[in-house]
Order: sequence, then C-alpha cells, then structure tokens
Amino acid sequence: MKNIALKIMYDGTNYHGWQFQKNGITVQERIEAVLSGLLEEKISVCGCSRTDAGVHALEFVLNFKSETTIPLERLPYAINTHLGDDDISVIAAREVSDDFNARFSAKGKCYEYRIWNSNIQNPFEAKYSWHVPYKLDVEEMKKAAEKFCGTHDFSAFMAAGGSQKTTVRTVHFCRVLWDEKEPHKIKIEIGANAFLYNMVRIIAGTLVEVGTGRKTAEEIEKIISDCDRRGAGQTAPPEGLFLKEVFYDQNVLEW
Amino acid sequence: MKNIALKIMYDGTNYHGWQFQKNGITVQERIEAVLSGLLEEKISVCGCSRTDAGVHALEFVLNFKSETTIPLERLPYAINTHLGDDDISVIAAREVSDDFNARFSAKGKCYEYRIWNSNIQNPFEAKYSWHVPYKLDVEEMKKAAEKFCGTHDFSAFMAAGGSQKTTVRTVHFCRVLWDEKEPHKIKIEIGANAFLYNMVRIIAGTLVEVGTGRKTAEEIEKIISDCDRRGAGQTAPPEGLFLKEVFYDQNVLEW
Repeated sequence: MKNIALKIMYDGTNYHGWQFQKNGITVQERIEAVLSGLLEEKISVCGCSRTDAGVHALEFVLNFKSETTIPLERLPYAINTHLGDDDISVIAAREVSDDFNARFSAKGKCYEYRIWNSNIQNPFEAKYSWHVPYKLDVEEMKKAAEKFCGTHDFSAFMAAGGSQKTTVRTVHFCRVLWDEKEPHKIKIEIGANAFLYNMVRIIAGTLVEVGTGRKTAEEIEKIISDCDRRGAGQTAPPEGLFLKEVFYDQNVLEW
Repeated sequence: MKNIALKIMYDGTNYHGWQFQKNGITVQERIEAVLSGLLEEKISVCGCSRTDAGVHALEFVLNFKSETTIPLERLPYAINTHLGDDDISVIAAREVSDDFNARFSAKGKCYEYRIWNSNIQNPFEAKYSWHVPYKLDVEEMKKAAEKFCGTHDFSAFMAAGGSQKTTVRTVHFCRVLWDEKEPHKIKIEIGANAFLYNMVRIIAGTLVEVGTGRKTAEEIEKIISDCDRRGAGQTAPPEGLFLKEVFYDQNVLEW
C-alpha cells in the first residue's frame, strides 16, 4: 500500500469548498470520484485544509492510500484528463511515508487575500477579489498588518463554530502588497503555523477598515488582546481568498 | 435627441459574443435590455466590433440615441446596478456628436492575445488564455511578429465568410511580450486600422507555429504575399482574445 501526496490548484468559484457535503459539489468529491475510477479502488483523500465555498487554491496538498502501480509521474496528467474540466488541476504527485497526513503533517500555511480597490467594477477581478470601491490607505494598512505578527490568542479573529483546543496561533508574516504599476490591486499575504476558522478573512476585513480610516493601525494590538470578535472587522468575502502554499518539513515532502 | 457613447468591459466566457443572435445570450442583448428598461424607451446600440463567442473586452465602445435627461456621469453606475451581475461593467459615458458611430468612426483598434505556455494547466488562466503545453521560442515569435507590420493584403489571415470590399489592412504594431517574472505568460499585441474576420486569432495561431518551430519567422512574408489561408496557422481559440483599445480622433471622443 502506497501513501501518495498530490499538489493541486483549483478555482473555487463553482465549488462548495473542499470538504465533502450533502448540499453541493466539492473539490474533494470530484477528486475522490476520479481517483476511484482511474485506480479502480475506493479512494478516500485527506486534504490539508477545509477551504470554504468560493475560496481558491494556488496550492493545495492532499494524500491518499492506494495499491496502484501506475508510475507516479504519469498520475497528474491521467487525473487531469479524467477530470476533463478546467477548474481543478493536479500539478505533481509524490510517494510519502506511511504516517504522512496532508493536514496534520503541515508545519504551516500561507494565504493570499486579493482586493480590487477601484470605483469601477472589473469583470475579470469579480470572482478573484473583494471589490472595495472607496480609496484605501495602503500605508496605514501596512502598519496595521505588522501588528498581527507573532504568537497571540487570535480568538477575536475567529468565526463562531470553531472547536479547537487553543486559539493561540503564531503568525510568521502578515504583509500588504501594492505596486504602483497596478494601483487598483492590493494583496494581503499571511503565513502562520495554523489558522482559526475564517481568521484570514476577518484579518482582511479588519485591514480594510484600517484602510478606510474606521480603525487605526494602533488599535490592532488592543483588538487582539481583547479577544472579542466584535472588536475586529467584518469577514471579508470568500472570492478574494487563495490558499497559496502549504509548508512541510523537507524530509517529509518536497516537490 | 442625444447620441451617447459608452465604454464598457466584459468577460465574454458566458456570452455568444457581442452581436444579437437567436441561439444564445449576447452582450448587446443584455445592454439593450437594461438601457431600454432604465431609460424607459426602446434603445438600439451600435458596437465598435463584433466579438465572437468567448472573446473578452478590456475596452469596448458602443453608442445609442436617447431622449434621456439622466446626467451622464450617473449613467455607468445606474446601468451596472441594473445589470446586477459581474461579467459586464460600464466604465464611462460621454455625449458625442450626432454623426458619431462606434464602429465607423473608429480609426483603429488594439487586440491582445494571451497564451499560457506551460505543461501544467492553470485553472485561473483557462478562460482567459490559450493553453499551449509545449515550450515556445519567444525570440523567434518576436521576429515573426514584426513581419506583420505595415500595409498588406491579409487575406491569408481571414476566415471564410468575411465579405469586405478589400482585404488590405494596415498593422501599426504587432509585438510578442514576455516577462521572466511570469515565464509561462506570453502576450501578443496587435494594433491596426481595421481587422479582417478572425485575423488576430489566425495571426496568433501562426505565431505559435513559429514558436514551436513548424514555421520560421522568415516564412511570414511569403505566407502574407501568397494570400492563401492554407499557408497560415490554425485559428487560435477565442478565450485568449481581448479587445484592448478602440481609437477615435480626440475631437470626436475622449474619455
């Protein structure tokens, strides 16, 4: 029995998120159906994260056990052919040790949140960013972003319904990126050892409130330490969120 | 009676092109329906170009006659609200002289053709570029692109069914753009006084054949002068094509 890891990317627009559910088609369901057909055995996959409906992945890692003898370098092409559509793509496959688990072996993740900051709506950005029509103060947002770095109790930045033992997380970096060549695009990049439910979207919503002047960069520390969800900003919409990278120890998984 | 010009942009993925037709929804149809409802009069619009199904527009100009007294600066927002979707957006409105016609007053247009050049399919590029999985020689494509500049009979680069008086067109520029920061993206930009039916897509298909080595840059001159469609390359798929800019004399229309 092999343990196989896949690196995939997907446009989440037409999916009810990653994880199997009754009420809509999910990425997990599509991958399991194709793998089960292709490998002629019942395949259950384990994903690195449970992305919400409409959220995208530039890199998503999953693993599954299989008896297959298909050479792994051929697997991405074979799966992509069977998927037969354009919104999920398998990029690479690797054999991993028996105890590898895409979710629990991950040492951290990086997310990107995209904002389209213009009074003009852009059809090419609509499914891949949050349209914020009022001018944002990027410099103030940059200052605020730094305050999220470090180890904190992030319970003010967690949606109700999370059920983890601890709400302490370590944010390795939180940056606001803006380039004068594309002045309407603002990106937020956040890397952490792990994330609470909706944490990135609530941080993004809070940073936008800093950008509009409703909150200041100086208030962020208090919002974090108050541990009160009502102190933080709104939950930014899912279409702007991209899982960008999943980190594993090099001896565990290297692409 | 006012003559009003609109600048719009649209994601053509879900449309059967610009122009009204029986078998599928078109951008023209949506715009006319919204304008007729909003302005409470029967509106017929004239578009600058007849884009094919799946083709996109970063800038598209249309005009229509109306008795409206709505201030023009409010019109884009009003139309966008009534469109109520994300794939068409009105950017600006201007009053123009009575004899302005978005199609016949245009002095030229610029198109952009996007190629995703990687053996890995990318879900975020699928609807907005041609996926070419084999490595293209960009330098050779650049040399070939220059050969299209100037005034030529472009009948070798016209799909059957065109019915224009002359097949002579003047190409002002034809460039292949590539940046090492995004090595999988190749763009072709073509500006001309006017275009034949499918001309940009056939030029793009021919440039890709140069990139793969099936044709050389030196052969382009002969392919043009032979005036034989069979000498040129395939018609590149519509999803990579973007109408980028429409040129008018400054005293006629300025945004």
